Amino acid sequence: MTRPVPDGTKREQLPPAVIAQLKALPPAITPELGQAVWALLTPFHEKIGYTAPRIDRDLRYGDHPRHRLDVHTGEEPPVAAPVFLFVHGGGFVGGDKNVPGTPRHDLVGAWAARQGWVGVTMTYRLAPEHQWPAGAQDVAAAVGWIRDNIAGHGGDPGKIVVAGNSAGAVHVASFITGQGGGSLEGVAGAALLSGIYDLAPDNRGALEHVYYGDTPAEAASTLPGLVDSPVPLLFSVAERDPVNFHAQAAGVVAAWQAKHGAVPDLVRVEGHNHLSTIASLGIDEPALGVALRRFVERNTTRAGVF
Amino acid sequence: MTRPVPDGTKREQLPPAVIAQLKALPPAITPELGQAVWALLTPFHEKIGYTAPRIDRDLRYGDHPRHRLDVHTGEEPPVAAPVFLFVHGGGFVGGDKNVPGTPRHDLVGAWAARQGWVGVTMTYRLAPEHQWPAGAQDVAAAVGWIRDNIAGHGGDPGKIVVAGNSAGAVHVASFITGQGGGSLEGVAGAALLSGIYDLAPDNRGALEHVYYGDTPAEAASTLPGLVDSPVPLLFSVAERDPVNFHAQAAGVVAAWQAKHGAVPDLVRVEGHNHLSTIASLGIDEPALGVALRRFVERNTTRAGVF
Repeated sequence: MTRPVPDGTKREQLPPAVIAQLKALPPAITPELGQAVWALLTPFHEKIGYTAPRIDRDLRYGDHPRHRLDVHTGEEPPVAAPVFLFVHGGGFVGGDKNVPGTPRHDLVGAWAARQGWVGVTMTYRLAPEHQWPAGAQDVAAAVGWIRDNIAGHGGDPGKIVVAGNSAGAVHVASFITGQGGGSLEGVAGAALLSGIYDLAPDNRGALEHVYYGDTPAEAASTLPGLVDSPVPLLFSVAERDPVNFHAQAAGVVAAWQAKHGAVPDLVRVEGHNHLSTIASLGIDEPALGVALRRFVERNTTRAGVF
Repeated sequence: MTRPVPDGTKREQLPPAVIAQLKALPPAITPELGQAVWALLTPFHEKIGYTAPRIDRDLRYGDHPRHRLDVHTGEEPPVAAPVFLFVHGGGFVGGDKNVPGTPRHDLVGAWAARQGWVGVTMTYRLAPEHQWPAGAQDVAAAVGWIRDNIAGHGGDPGKIVVAGNSAGAVHVASFITGQGGGSLEGVAGAALLSGIYDLAPDNRGALEHVYYGDTPAEAASTLPGLVDSPVPLLFSVAERDPVNFHAQAAGVVAAWQAKHGAVPDLVRVEGHNHLSTIASLGIDEPALGVALRRFVERNTTRAGVF
């Protein structure tokens, strides 16, 4: 019996019944979870539109066939806008920047374009053929491409925010902490959504073994580097993420608190699971989008204001 | 150079320059911090209006002169609406539900009324005259009053969310864990903003000594009871809260993770400090209001939906 609230967040929120259906799904990351999530949420993305007004597809940022990225912009050409680079998940062995005919993951570019930013979605090399630190190297190469080329698309090469979910978060963390080489110049922030940062043997599953091979935990783990990083960081974990992702998030809080005497910027994505977190952008903004947008805006405001 | 975003959260956000001024304030909880916060933020509350269309003042919920509460509602009389009870801070020895001519804390009632809820702001007995668990007893008595009387104001006695900040959060936690007696019937959730839950001797300052006297840590601490509580909880800590509040928040995360294998619903209130957190409601919604509103809505939706 609450009356309508006169602002946008109400409209950009999933109906309670849909959240209830999401919450009822088992958290395990299975093909069935993906099917259920996208069956529930695709209609909402179709309703708001999941393709940005302009998409420049398959620009090459390296020699490998998967060294490709798409640039998403709005109706009006942006000018010196923040750049939001998204790195997809897929367990190190799969996934893509876009699956034609679906919102995956053009929706992220459309969401960024809607904020007036330049959205970039990238594909990267996969395990088992390409093991650690190939993912971090590819993020570094894509960031390098952005620095060199994004002004031509209306982006500011000094305002790059890099975001990744799941394996994408692992690759972004790996890039931020220098595992993949490359420069952090222009990187104004990183958003790490449902990632793994402490790669102690007990925290590795089958897919981590495929990507990391015999890499020791000390080399693979990014947590010590993240708490020391000068790059502003936002972390998230989904309410319905599997337990190991919650353990990782709690570990980030403990390490951050020990180092900084303060809790990190950690968003618990209410109502969502490992796969629906990224799908919440644009259609369920209070879950993650509001905080993520504020994070990007804070860290890409012109120098001197913050 | 970002373009305007076509939804309400942009309008309900403080300008970056004001956030920068807030962030520049020393975090220590002093009269000077209060003066600086309210000097910065009162103009924004005056702009949006900090008094609800209807306020029923100084209704008595007990015999003591401070057993008073105000009921805030909107233009249209609500029907079976969620009830948002706010318990102010003030270091156990001060504070009030309203300071005439200022937004403190009618703004909270106005914010609740704007959502279509019934807002209630309460005053309670203070230390040193009234020590632990007087605060919890008073919250319990106010909740009892709400159960008996709020239907006459358009509220649903089965949809009570209790929120407190600072000492108010301590009293709410104390009520939720049963220290003050009373019934939890109708309590649909509790929001604990910048509170202290582990009252080990090292965590007690001068004001805790005034309120708790010789009460042992085991009796005073609410953390073990909170992690076992059936009442849905939202915690928050301000980005610029003093270190001991961050330590408390990190402790909540660790205890919650140990008990539930999941992180709690903890909001880090970006850009704000111990005193500006509650002042953010209505004028800087992405900081706390968006998450708090979603929390209330989720937990007051009719039975069966969740």
